[in-house]
Amino acid sequence: MSIRYIFYLCSRIFFVLAILMVLPILVSLIYNDGCVTAFLIPALVLVALGLLGGFKKPAKGTLFAKEGFAVVTIIWIVFAVFGAMPFMISGTIPRFADAFFETVSGFTTTGSTILSEVETLPNSIQFWRHFIVWIGGMGVLAFALAILPIESDKNKKRSQSVGSDVYIIRAESPGPMFGKLVPKLRFNVQILYLIYAVMTLAEIILLLLGGMDLFDSVCHSFASAGTGGFSTKNASIGAYDSAYIETVIGVFILMFGINFNIFYFLLTKNILGILKSDELRWYLIIVASAVLLITLDIRSLYGDFFLSLRYAFFQVASIITTSGFATTDFDLWSSFSKGILVLLMFCGGCASSTAGGLKVSRLIIMVKTALKEIRYYLNPREVRAIRCDGNHVPQSVVTGVSAYFVVYMLIFAVSVLLITLAESGQSLETCFTAVATCFNNVGPGLDAVGPTRNFGFLSDVSKYLLSINMLLGRLELFPILALFSKTAWKH
Amino acid sequence: MSIRYIFYLCSRIFFVLAILMVLPILVSLIYNDGCVTAFLIPALVLVALGLLGGFKKPAKGTLFAKEGFAVVTIIWIVFAVFGAMPFMISGTIPRFADAFFETVSGFTTTGSTILSEVETLPNSIQFWRHFIVWIGGMGVLAFALAILPIESDKNKKRSQSVGSDVYIIRAESPGPMFGKLVPKLRFNVQILYLIYAVMTLAEIILLLLGGMDLFDSVCHSFASAGTGGFSTKNASIGAYDSAYIETVIGVFILMFGINFNIFYFLLTKNILGILKSDELRWYLIIVASAVLLITLDIRSLYGDFFLSLRYAFFQVASIITTSGFATTDFDLWSSFSKGILVLLMFCGGCASSTAGGLKVSRLIIMVKTALKEIRYYLNPREVRAIRCDGNHVPQSVVTGVSAYFVVYMLIFAVSVLLITLAESGQSLETCFTAVATCFNNVGPGLDAVGPTRNFGFLSDVSKYLLSINMLLGRLELFPILALFSKTAWKH
Repeated sequence: MSIRYIFYLCSRIFFVLAILMVLPILVSLIYNDGCVTAFLIPALVLVALGLLGGFKKPAKGTLFAKEGFAVVTIIWIVFAVFGAMPFMISGTIPRFADAFFETVSGFTTTGSTILSEVETLPNSIQFWRHFIVWIGGMGVLAFALAILPIESDKNKKRSQSVGSDVYIIRAESPGPMFGKLVPKLRFNVQILYLIYAVMTLAEIILLLLGGMDLFDSVCHSFASAGTGGFSTKNASIGAYDSAYIETVIGVFILMFGINFNIFYFLLTKNILGILKSDELRWYLIIVASAVLLITLDIRSLYGDFFLSLRYAFFQVASIITTSGFATTDFDLWSSFSKGILVLLMFCGGCASSTAGGLKVSRLIIMVKTALKEIRYYLNPREVRAIRCDGNHVPQSVVTGVSAYFVVYMLIFAVSVLLITLAESGQSLETCFTAVATCFNNVGPGLDAVGPTRNFGFLSDVSKYLLSINMLLGRLELFPILALFSKTAWKH
Repeated sequence: MSIRYIFYLCSRIFFVLAILMVLPILVSLIYNDGCVTAFLIPALVLVALGLLGGFKKPAKGTLFAKEGFAVVTIIWIVFAVFGAMPFMISGTIPRFADAFFETVSGFTTTGSTILSEVETLPNSIQFWRHFIVWIGGMGVLAFALAILPIESDKNKKRSQSVGSDVYIIRAESPGPMFGKLVPKLRFNVQILYLIYAVMTLAEIILLLLGGMDLFDSVCHSFASAGTGGFSTKNASIGAYDSAYIETVIGVFILMFGINFNIFYFLLTKNILGILKSDELRWYLIIVASAVLLITLDIRSLYGDFFLSLRYAFFQVASIITTSGFATTDFDLWSSFSKGILVLLMFCGGCASSTAGGLKVSRLIIMVKTALKEIRYYLNPREVRAIRCDGNHVPQSVVTGVSAYFVVYMLIFAVSVLLITLAESGQSLETCFTAVATCFNNVGPGLDAVGPTRNFGFLSDVSKYLLSINMLLGRLELFPILALFSKTAWKH
């Protein structure tokens, strides 16, 4: 691993992180909430760090897989640390463990909060909480790549690495495979960010039309776009008690949970590309079935079919897209409905969306692998490849998905055990769902971390552990785990 | 699938099932408990069924994978149904759902009971409960094969199927690979059953020396040998409150959780074979770590280090071997200790032992696959095979293990959901651990199915669902799932 080259790249991206802080500074100036320095200080430190190493490119140095993953991991951790500073300097979240948890939670689009009172936050701090969800959703390195080329084209030819920035995007973009829409990666990222921005804008307008004020509309749209689930209200979206707002947000988070390539197909009128998508079909089927089952199950609780449908639709959309907004205390639902929600946490949205979880495409490949294995068991001579979206899935991807699931469950199991150790006295359900919700970047869990509670009561050790879980979940394990591998450090 | 040939084979094995009922009849005669007819009726029906189809061999018909798995599944279900009859006829468990659950629980070596009062059972019924655990542990078809050749050698040559009975044994024997000790399969099975019988006898003698009476010693030894966990006492092994008895049973269940090939190596003084076993080493490391962690954790509860160690050792041995005996109410332990126990349920014992769960060898291969995948992620050109016990593990086995885990977790998730639906009002923890304990053939769960409770309060639907879970777990999914595959029914 060429450390100097990694340092050079990171330094360049520090500038981008500093630029991100310009927006909350503007918000602070507009509302005059006195938090300008809270953002100015970390921004200036980032610029200084950037100047330190970002100008002179090391003579030799190429970006291969190892370096790409190292850059991604470092930038996400650095951003989590610097992103926490405004909370601490402004005094809104004075302790580092809390501010770090809150920032990681936003940045990884989890949306779990340690705050019991969010409505009194200064506007710029409130904006920052939601803005980092928006950036984290599509990826901060993708953002950096969209506005600043990591390597010049001339350089790329010389180093002969095949689109070396692909390693960075691959590490940050969720799903078992990374499909490019257009040959040039930077253009690709710009298209996706443009779709993302336009959809966010559309949601802001629709929320305004529903009577939500501008500031809240912007914040909630950021939180929905990143499927993060932070809210400016203590009672989350439930505070509005409006079927219109719930429908707008419910539909938008479901859209943000779809593979963004689908929207590109829509723009380029590639209807075949959309119809061929197994993942989209399964995603919609899962959502519809879950809504139906929960509606029937909670009908006896609310007495009214349409109210039950409304709660079920919003909660299913919120959980499968790993947003984590709440309109009602689903911790009061039956074990069956809660069980479905926990399964949806693990399922998650589609690949290349802003949703977390295992991703529907991985689930499809897993189910097909299972069916294939049963056939293989009966007839070892019969070899059939797994198909998805009408194409063969390469064997390396199939093996990778199963291995991913194994690593996923192993880390999950160990994490639950560590949390039970750090939180003696809490129920297994609390510990289990706290990890499930953080690891899958959802937001609320059940029992003591249910939708009407928060994560503030946890010990610092648990907050750090869950922060690591959120990062592992958002970056899909391997970029971070790879750093602990001997291979990464071998020359 | 050649249905007639399957019928012929099953009919022959019905005789063996009838023979198994001779022992409890003898017990009934000795104790004069009036239950002779309870066993005689099903035995005679089995003989009649056997006579119906077991004499004339169909002209054509060979035993391939499909037929092998069908025979295993049919025999296990038939035996569960006929095994339930003595409970019903004797009036001790009058309802079929209950009697079926109890029989499947015994036969699959799970050891969950629906009885709240076991101490008043007639001796022959008590004996039968424990005897089916012993038979289920090593496999009823293996038993059949040991005492009666399924196909004559002459026949085998003609059909040219390579040791066709291997499919039956493979389907019944747990673990990712099936390793033969000696070339002749029937001799192989006889050796294993001999080791099994001698070890059981040794345990009976040691329990007698500890002051347990003969009948209880026999029953508890049967239950330990099969790692089933039924007991003649309501308070399970805790009723004796004897460190000696707990140590004997704890050590013996740990031994019965070891791959039986190890004992063969021991007999043939093949020390190298034992030292090379990765599975044995990991198994012992896992047991030792779990005992240590739980001892330290529950020390504050019991106040005494040695008492904690005693409880921890017995409970870890009982859960990892999926026996399910209890000496204390571990539902009162902390979430951390309960979390470890739940993980041990999934871990299970070694392959080719009588223990359930995923098996340590699968876990080893899973962890190695995970590590390999991380290396592959960093360097896709580096291809390294996975090694176990010093040998290369074939790629088909590696893929199979990952796929097994995927199928396992999918079935687990669906089962939990179905149980929450059937048992509305029960906690998620109850539903989750009820499935975990039945699917892994352990015995007790947590909360409402904890070690001091029983499964009697569940609805019939749940009892059947959990029975299916126990069968799926004991036969390791595929033989049963394969029956639902289109491939199995194609000519």
